[in-house]
Amino acid sequence: LTSLEGLGFALDPLDRASYEREDASEMARLRARGDARAILIARDMPVLLKDGAALNPLLPMAEIEALGGARVEALLGVTPDGAPVFAALLRDETVEQQSDASDGFLDRRALVVPGRDDLKLIDLRSISAGGLVPPDQASMLGSAKALMHWHARRRFCSNCGAETLVSAAGWRRECPVCKMHHFPRTDPVVIMLAVDGDACLLGRQPRFPKGMYSALAGFVEPGETIEAAVRREILEEAGVECDAVRYFASQPWPFPSSLMIGCFAHARGRAFEVDRVELEDARWFSRHETRALLERRHPDGLVAPIPMAIAHHLIKKWAFEDVDFTQFAQH
Amino acid sequence: LTSLEGLGFALDPLDRASYEREDASEMARLRARGDARAILIARDMPVLLKDGAALNPLLPMAEIEALGGARVEALLGVTPDGAPVFAALLRDETVEQQSDASDGFLDRRALVVPGRDDLKLIDLRSISAGGLVPPDQASMLGSAKALMHWHARRRFCSNCGAETLVSAAGWRRECPVCKMHHFPRTDPVVIMLAVDGDACLLGRQPRFPKGMYSALAGFVEPGETIEAAVRREILEEAGVECDAVRYFASQPWPFPSSLMIGCFAHARGRAFEVDRVELEDARWFSRHETRALLERRHPDGLVAPIPMAIAHHLIKKWAFEDVDFTQFAQH
Repeated sequence: LTSLEGLGFALDPLDRASYEREDASEMARLRARGDARAILIARDMPVLLKDGAALNPLLPMAEIEALGGARVEALLGVTPDGAPVFAALLRDETVEQQSDASDGFLDRRALVVPGRDDLKLIDLRSISAGGLVPPDQASMLGSAKALMHWHARRRFCSNCGAETLVSAAGWRRECPVCKMHHFPRTDPVVIMLAVDGDACLLGRQPRFPKGMYSALAGFVEPGETIEAAVRREILEEAGVECDAVRYFASQPWPFPSSLMIGCFAHARGRAFEVDRVELEDARWFSRHETRALLERRHPDGLVAPIPMAIAHHLIKKWAFEDVDFTQFAQH
Repeated sequence: LTSLEGLGFALDPLDRASYEREDASEMARLRARGDARAILIARDMPVLLKDGAALNPLLPMAEIEALGGARVEALLGVTPDGAPVFAALLRDETVEQQSDASDGFLDRRALVVPGRDDLKLIDLRSISAGGLVPPDQASMLGSAKALMHWHARRRFCSNCGAETLVSAAGWRRECPVCKMHHFPRTDPVVIMLAVDGDACLLGRQPRFPKGMYSALAGFVEPGETIEAAVRREILEEAGVECDAVRYFASQPWPFPSSLMIGCFAHARGRAFEVDRVELEDARWFSRHETRALLERRHPDGLVAPIPMAIAHHLIKKWAFEDVDFTQFAQH
């Protein structure tokens, strides 16, 4: 078995207790428990409690009231220890831009809770990449952030324009006028390595860190199979035709609420033409080179993504174990 | 390779030409072409043109105007022959309930275009199950229906309540007030066969046709991997714990806009407890029995879904070829 060690957001340990969501009295009972905890989200950022040198994302429920109440609360689930975990979306006004820019460039847009030096807002990408909380907590933060990002932008009914109400323990919004039910979005994204013999195709988007090359990716559209989306994206972005497609693994990616579907695709040849709107560059890398990318010893200073990203594991799987395209259906 | 022959909606032949969507003049040029065709959707139903005994879902563009204009038009893509194919959402008032119920029970809710006996509205499930159009056309209808179902319920901005405008050749809606961009939804659904040695777990929902048993299924939620969703759904619906999960194949399912992700899951045992809210019944079937279900010769009159559904192919794969759980990452 291939190890996916370090893959981000993929280890949510909660029992989602989804069959309890319609039971308001059970929700009230769980919320009142002494071991209940809340993950707080404000302006798409998790609010962490400083605990010595550590940061704790699981706050006492009383913090919701202390911080001015929540726009939305949702039951994320129950820990293996039986403790309920809620997510709460704080009002935007609860936090503000830090006026003191003394922390320098990286903190220039830092958000703070005024008067609460014991709380810290950190964007989830940095939390996960920096290992600021354990992987299971980062995964719960991912669930909370994706769900609250959706709520934050769904106050109105898209069908009739009326204000919607939160229901099902935070997992649905209902329109009181046209009665439409709205459910949280999860957007499937294919992310794939096109390979041909000893070479794999990697590209870089203009926004990538300097020197980073990664797998190509794109949203699955209505009417597409995963396999068709993989072939379309590689053809569109790099002009490479592929035939067989092989699923590898998946990952929730809460930026804002994607489901990354990692695949390999067998290329029909190496001729390619980069679409310069989507990509700054694309290249074929040899297996030897991709190992250097992963181990950060490529002579040109090029690197692969870190293990938090599924692209790292796609590249690693191919670089060290190869891929068998002869298995299962391809369509 | 496993054959997926008969799988519905999975053969959209169009080049989606997604990089042209922002180019309004190119859209106008494609729309004006003599070989351009439109798939018309009214109240979620395709409008087909009678052509002798056949039904044609690809109508001349002029029909859009003839039928009172479209609420939304979208470029679906370009056929292998180079012909542009559009989807158009007709106004609800263009069609009406058939007052004459002489066609009997099945047509009691039939929709018609008044004065146009050459047009027929048929729900897409019946079109595909009945093979009323070739598989590639049924697949295009699936793309059109999913996209237009989304548009039909997205007139207003969910963020601020303002009326939104269609952009990107029908693949985006933009809010002129808060500037939010809204993209079509594709909802990932896991559909899976739990297996243990010579037995697989099938269930039936109350709405299923009499005697039909199928694979369990459910939506992937924010923060879940495909594999976690598979395990959660089987545990919730049937009380069966699974460990290894293996991807099989995918299918667009335009009811209304799902992406079916077909998987196998290895069960830790056969003890189970049916959740009677979701399922009317669940049972373990032997390999011998599942072959009888597929071939419609089960002694109790039980049947598996037809080949249009990916569940058919999951069951068939396991019944005739078994499944290897030793490959690739499971998490």
